[in-house]
Amino acid sequence: MKTTISLTTDFGNQDGFVGVMKGVIWGIAPDAHVADITHDIPPQNIRLGAYALWRVVPYFPPGSVHIAVIDPGVGTQRRPIGLKIGEQQFIVPDNGLITPILEEGERSGKRIEMVHLNNPKYWLENVSHTFHGRDIFAPTGAHLAAGVPIENLGDPIEDPVRIDFSHPIKRDYGWEAHITIIDVFGNLTTDLPAEAVLGADDVKIRLGDHSIDGLVYSYGHRPQGELVALVDSENFIEIGAVNGSAAQVTGAKIGNKVEVILNG
Amino acid sequence: MKTTISLTTDFGNQDGFVGVMKGVIWGIAPDAHVADITHDIPPQNIRLGAYALWRVVPYFPPGSVHIAVIDPGVGTQRRPIGLKIGEQQFIVPDNGLITPILEEGERSGKRIEMVHLNNPKYWLENVSHTFHGRDIFAPTGAHLAAGVPIENLGDPIEDPVRIDFSHPIKRDYGWEAHITIIDVFGNLTTDLPAEAVLGADDVKIRLGDHSIDGLVYSYGHRPQGELVALVDSENFIEIGAVNGSAAQVTGAKIGNKVEVILNG
Amino acid sequence: MKTTISLTTDFGNQDGFVGVMKGVIWGIAPDAHVADITHDIPPQNIRLGAYALWRVVPYFPPGSVHIAVIDPGVGTQRRPIGLKIGEQQFIVPDNGLITPILEEGERSGKRIEMVHLNNPKYWLENVSHTFHGRDIFAPTGAHLAAGVPIENLGDPIEDPVRIDFSHPIKRDYGWEAHITIIDVFGNLTTDLPAEAVLGADDVKIRLGDHSIDGLVYSYGHRPQGELVALVDSENFIEIGAVNGSAAQVTGAKIGNKVEVILNG
Repeated sequence: MKTTISLTTDFGNQDGFVGVMKGVIWGIAPDAHVADITHDIPPQNIRLGAYALWRVVPYFPPGSVHIAVIDPGVGTQRRPIGLKIGEQQFIVPDNGLITPILEEGERSGKRIEMVHLNNPKYWLENVSHTFHGRDIFAPTGAHLAAGVPIENLGDPIEDPVRIDFSHPIKRDYGWEAHITIIDVFGNLTTDLPAEAVLGADDVKIRLGDHSIDGLVYSYGHRPQGELVALVDSENFIEIGAVNGSAAQVTGAKIGNKVEVILNG
Repeated sequence: MKTTISLTTDFGNQDGFVGVMKGVIWGIAPDAHVADITHDIPPQNIRLGAYALWRVVPYFPPGSVHIAVIDPGVGTQRRPIGLKIGEQQFIVPDNGLITPILEEGERSGKRIEMVHLNNPKYWLENVSHTFHGRDIFAPTGAHLAAGVPIENLGDPIEDPVRIDFSHPIKRDYGWEAHITIIDVFGNLTTDLPAEAVLGADDVKIRLGDHSIDGLVYSYGHRPQGELVALVDSENFIEIGAVNGSAAQVTGAKIGNKVEVILNG
Repeated sequence: MKTTISLTTDFGNQDGFVGVMKGVIWGIAPDAHVADITHDIPPQNIRLGAYALWRVVPYFPPGSVHIAVIDPGVGTQRRPIGLKIGEQQFIVPDNGLITPILEEGERSGKRIEMVHLNNPKYWLENVSHTFHGRDIFAPTGAHLAAGVPIENLGDPIEDPVRIDFSHPIKRDYGWEAHITIIDVFGNLTTDLPAEAVLGADDVKIRLGDHSIDGLVYSYGHRPQGELVALVDSENFIEIGAVNGSAAQVTGAKIGNKVEVILNG
């Protein structure tokens, strides 16, 4: 069986940290595919790493193993953990990186198994204090991909670390949403699911001094440079600029408030 | 059979857009290899994407599937198309991205098949308005790699969108060429094929205020920093700076005129 | 057998140079895995490329083929060479890129075979003067991965080019070490192996105006922003800043002197 392994880190692509993890992986699981999700998470930004991983997981084949390493606590007592959530498997530091996926799995009633990756049989023989991506996460993930059951990787746990993620707030005028992701095109994703607005007769969106009337179907339906709101590819409300960067036009930052005014 | 799939996009590597396409691909075509060509095409620059793809295709094994997504018209009526040109296969938006490869295929009399990718059986079940790379291009490309014949993917077409690419112009003095690509080393590729000058007794090249006498065999044959002209790895005339950046030295931009004076 | 091939270059990821090498490789060795180590070695910096490769090789499966192309001499008389050092194989330009791995192999008494890659049977049919990565290194590496014995690739050699790498110098006060690598987090690796200091009762480190007392176990054990010294993941002394960049804090550059004062 060809298992797909995904990698999400803040290691960048210039130092070989990711390449060496692949060397370790293919020594253990020679049939695995390895897909890089991103290695450009801003250093130690667990929140953005969590979003990046959460967005892509539903598109991976059942049985995939997702190794994510944004790990400011490497070398401290923070636990390395393994999770099976429905048909997807995860190898992560226990720092909240898995929170949105775990919460979604709980909400949708998926079967969940969680272990502390404390069985050194599945680590490299020598474990450094600074690079558990290579020495613990890559080899345990590869063993998982090669067919080792998750319960063999360590003791069961029930209390993974969770962190708060922004949620939209119901207001008189509609919803207070927040910017969660700014992508390379400068599109601004919010935390407001599309279903919250799709029934409304009239939608107006305010971000700082900028105001947008209505939703468009796609970027291609308005004049160049105009700010538009639309449903993004994960079904959240997104603000973009036609053939331009909404981040540049608005100066918006992650966490900024977006007022979504319904039937106003 | 292990088919190789190549990916060329303007998605960058930081947001996971490419990684999720690989998740989709390996769910459908678990035996495929996936080679990233580049994801750093300047946003929505169809012309540069077309050059990038055109340069690499001849080196891929017969039967390869090239998925290229530089797609400013995503969500509009622009068609997704599939092409088989000789032994190579392509999945692209119908916006001219395939023009140089198609024209070269026509010139050399290759067998060409073209279809509108309008058979939703080979798409993901839910198609977003903003990310056809994941929802249409990746899955149809993966089905093609897994052995689905191209004619199953949609209705035949005969009128793909074509865009103009610069061509060298014959002049009294020799050729007016144009800069087509500036690579990461600052080398300046032109649209003039090497065979246009190789018979000449004497070649002089002018770019802005800079003048270069003769062609060199490789970068290693002149003093550090000197501007040189040579035949590049795709057999076009290129201007480089020995162990330096010709783009920096000359300030040249894509499209700039390069005068190639023969026997002058 | 699934052989893993690693790629280390200064080609960047934007121009498709790496992608086309994979096209060549999979045409010859369809079962090979390809792991990118890094393509962001500063242009033509053989020394940094040598370090990058040397750090990762021990973690690759036996029989791996490492293709490294930092090649300012492309198109000149510099030889392309192949090496088998213990269980690892290498395809490199003969310019010193292999020096640290070769010297370590010699010190540890590994079996070493070296050949000049002058058998054109294993090259592409047409070899350009500017892109041997695609035309010589990728295909010979792929043939090696596909099972061709290294001695078939060309004539034996015994005199590969070697370059000097910094070594720590024993001083009255302890060791004069030097910064060898600055990674994406701004951590500063030195050339001093950890065993040189681990027996000492007291370690003080000086870098420019900065002074650090003692070694910490990992980044997580000191206050945010503080400079710390620790043993890095390859067992060398490293200077880091807790959740920050030691390179920014100190302004240090590669080659800078680091005084390691023992029992002072």
